[in-house]
Amino acid sequence: MHDLLTLDTPCLLLDRDILHKNIDTMAERCRDMDIALRPHVKTPKSLPVAAAFAASGAQGFCVSTLKEAETFFAAGYTDLFYTVPIDAAKIPRAAAMLRAGHDLSLLVSSPAGLPAIAERGATEKVVLPMWVEIDVDGYRTGIPSDSEDLAAAIRLIQDHPHLSLRGIMSYGGDSYTRRTRDAVAALTETHRLALLKAADKVQAMGYARPKLSFGSTPATRHAETLEGIDEVRCGIYAFQDLFQAGIGACGQDEIALSVLTTVISHSPHLNRFTIDAGGLALSKDRSTQGNDFDAGFGLVCDMATGDAIAGLYVGTVSQEIGIVSHIDGKPIDLARFPVGSRLRILPNHADMTAAAYEQYHVLTPGGIEIWTRANGW
Amino acid sequence: MHDLLTLDTPCLLLDRDILHKNIDTMAERCRDMDIALRPHVKTPKSLPVAAAFAASGAQGFCVSTLKEAETFFAAGYTDLFYTVPIDAAKIPRAAAMLRAGHDLSLLVSSPAGLPAIAERGATEKVVLPMWVEIDVDGYRTGIPSDSEDLAAAIRLIQDHPHLSLRGIMSYGGDSYTRRTRDAVAALTETHRLALLKAADKVQAMGYARPKLSFGSTPATRHAETLEGIDEVRCGIYAFQDLFQAGIGACGQDEIALSVLTTVISHSPHLNRFTIDAGGLALSKDRSTQGNDFDAGFGLVCDMATGDAIAGLYVGTVSQEIGIVSHIDGKPIDLARFPVGSRLRILPNHADMTAAAYEQYHVLTPGGIEIWTRANGW
Repeated sequence: MHDLLTLDTPCLLLDRDILHKNIDTMAERCRDMDIALRPHVKTPKSLPVAAAFAASGAQGFCVSTLKEAETFFAAGYTDLFYTVPIDAAKIPRAAAMLRAGHDLSLLVSSPAGLPAIAERGATEKVVLPMWVEIDVDGYRTGIPSDSEDLAAAIRLIQDHPHLSLRGIMSYGGDSYTRRTRDAVAALTETHRLALLKAADKVQAMGYARPKLSFGSTPATRHAETLEGIDEVRCGIYAFQDLFQAGIGACGQDEIALSVLTTVISHSPHLNRFTIDAGGLALSKDRSTQGNDFDAGFGLVCDMATGDAIAGLYVGTVSQEIGIVSHIDGKPIDLARFPVGSRLRILPNHADMTAAAYEQYHVLTPGGIEIWTRANGW
Repeated sequence: MHDLLTLDTPCLLLDRDILHKNIDTMAERCRDMDIALRPHVKTPKSLPVAAAFAASGAQGFCVSTLKEAETFFAAGYTDLFYTVPIDAAKIPRAAAMLRAGHDLSLLVSSPAGLPAIAERGATEKVVLPMWVEIDVDGYRTGIPSDSEDLAAAIRLIQDHPHLSLRGIMSYGGDSYTRRTRDAVAALTETHRLALLKAADKVQAMGYARPKLSFGSTPATRHAETLEGIDEVRCGIYAFQDLFQAGIGACGQDEIALSVLTTVISHSPHLNRFTIDAGGLALSKDRSTQGNDFDAGFGLVCDMATGDAIAGLYVGTVSQEIGIVSHIDGKPIDLARFPVGSRLRILPNHADMTAAAYEQYHVLTPGGIEIWTRANGW
């Protein structure tokens, strides 16, 4: 047992055994499907987690900020894909990494910004390796794969000396709204076919066949086949969270991340108690609201075992205070949770919760390790 | 005009003129009511904002973390009130500040933890200056003012050599659910009377009359009288936000904080566009959801003027992407918002949005200043 009573609360706990198991399971899944896995480091933003990704066979990572790109290149990783659409003002910072010899892939999700991006590439004297995002499910961003805009974007990239086409990608965000394995598998197949069609289109335009990349953890987990796709991008699977558990993408015991908190007050007249993890420590994410099971701002777990305590959740939060109540309004035995005692809270959305912390307290068989995060932009 | 095109986005903008006006308005309001104002630094977490509070006459501040307390004491401020219920494990850190000669007030919101807190005070060889929170409106924490628990807590504090009673406080959180000035004023009066009654009770027990403290920005703004109360605690008024505007506590033009963002993609087929401010840059706070006007994840404003652009809001977010759509579904003229152009986003909840940033870019008549924040715990 780690001595969790000596840590300042709130703090962020990461169970290394669960983390490694999650990483290995997804790596094995992708090996079984014979597809390369490019893990997203936007969730962990941490070098030791990247090392675990690499140990499981990952050749490169996705990043969500240029700061992550700078951090992971500086640590010796060589192949990063910045998967947020780039704009011209960010090109100088990206160009500095390219000129330093790093392999940084960039994304464009509509042709509208490409001329300015290309012009900035020319000013910076670099060739920008571009991916083009297609929109398959209307969930987030991208160019419709059957539109003239896609051909226009491809042509702009192929014809400009400071741009080069790396590949075509899509993000299966709609997998987060689908509630059955079959529905997620069907969505994945729609994406796969759209990506293959886009590659055909590029070839028909007389260019080399582009690489194809597809993303989302549940879509990869439930895919029937990803034949013809070169790589998948997934991130949240390393930590998992209550939202992923709620949509059936993982079990609750596969959640590696939790917040350590202290009971700071009892309100027997209101049948609830108060913890020192509020909106900042847990985030205001309410993504489980749409699931069958609404976990409030997080589920309350035993400090030592990490197992959920039946019926207890963080029902409301203010900035530094969480109010724990019973989901069904049943009486809470406050004597079980003395002021000063400690609990863990499972997060709704790991990315959002982790972002409030500079570091993880990592639970390992040998004791607690500190792993830092690269927050901000 | 500040050159907002040279900043990396997303970043956090603070309009110094609006900030100072908000601070002065509240200070004047409290002078008119002849009550001391103890501003909360949990929203700004920044020394120059504290300096503005002090310039407007504030004698001391509230803090929401021990890290804020350490930061503001180190900067020379002498009188801080940590307004989150404390537990025994935090006493050594608080005691170190007390032993250094700083005036740190602590809070307890139920008698349950007091013996352990007192014991830790003895171990640390300090006398802990305690406030007791009473619960008047069932909104958050505190001991019911008419309960035996209140007398028990008072007695525990008064009789222990390592605790001293500073005062009684309450937080008018229910002011955030009340939609009219009169309803907020009525709530404030209920709190005032409960605080006075609690002070009477302490006196009737044979102890000196305690100080009385009351909090919340809208309650202070709309109070009829605060006679007999020694000080009010308010924080959000310095920045304001869309939630405060939505409940009538400020005008939209009184919001000092915004997020500078860049348009990174167009989706003409979906009548929307994408910005580089997502769930991390804006926070997942959805507090305006319950208001008459739901501002999504933030309102879209002109970069230069900061004025809201009619009809546009951030309808959905993922980690680093915000999707701007029209509130009523009307067609958006995308040519007005070229990829690479910049916008400001007004936040739902200033505390939550600001927490993602290490610093403010402060707009002043003389140019942009950088003010840092004391995030974390």
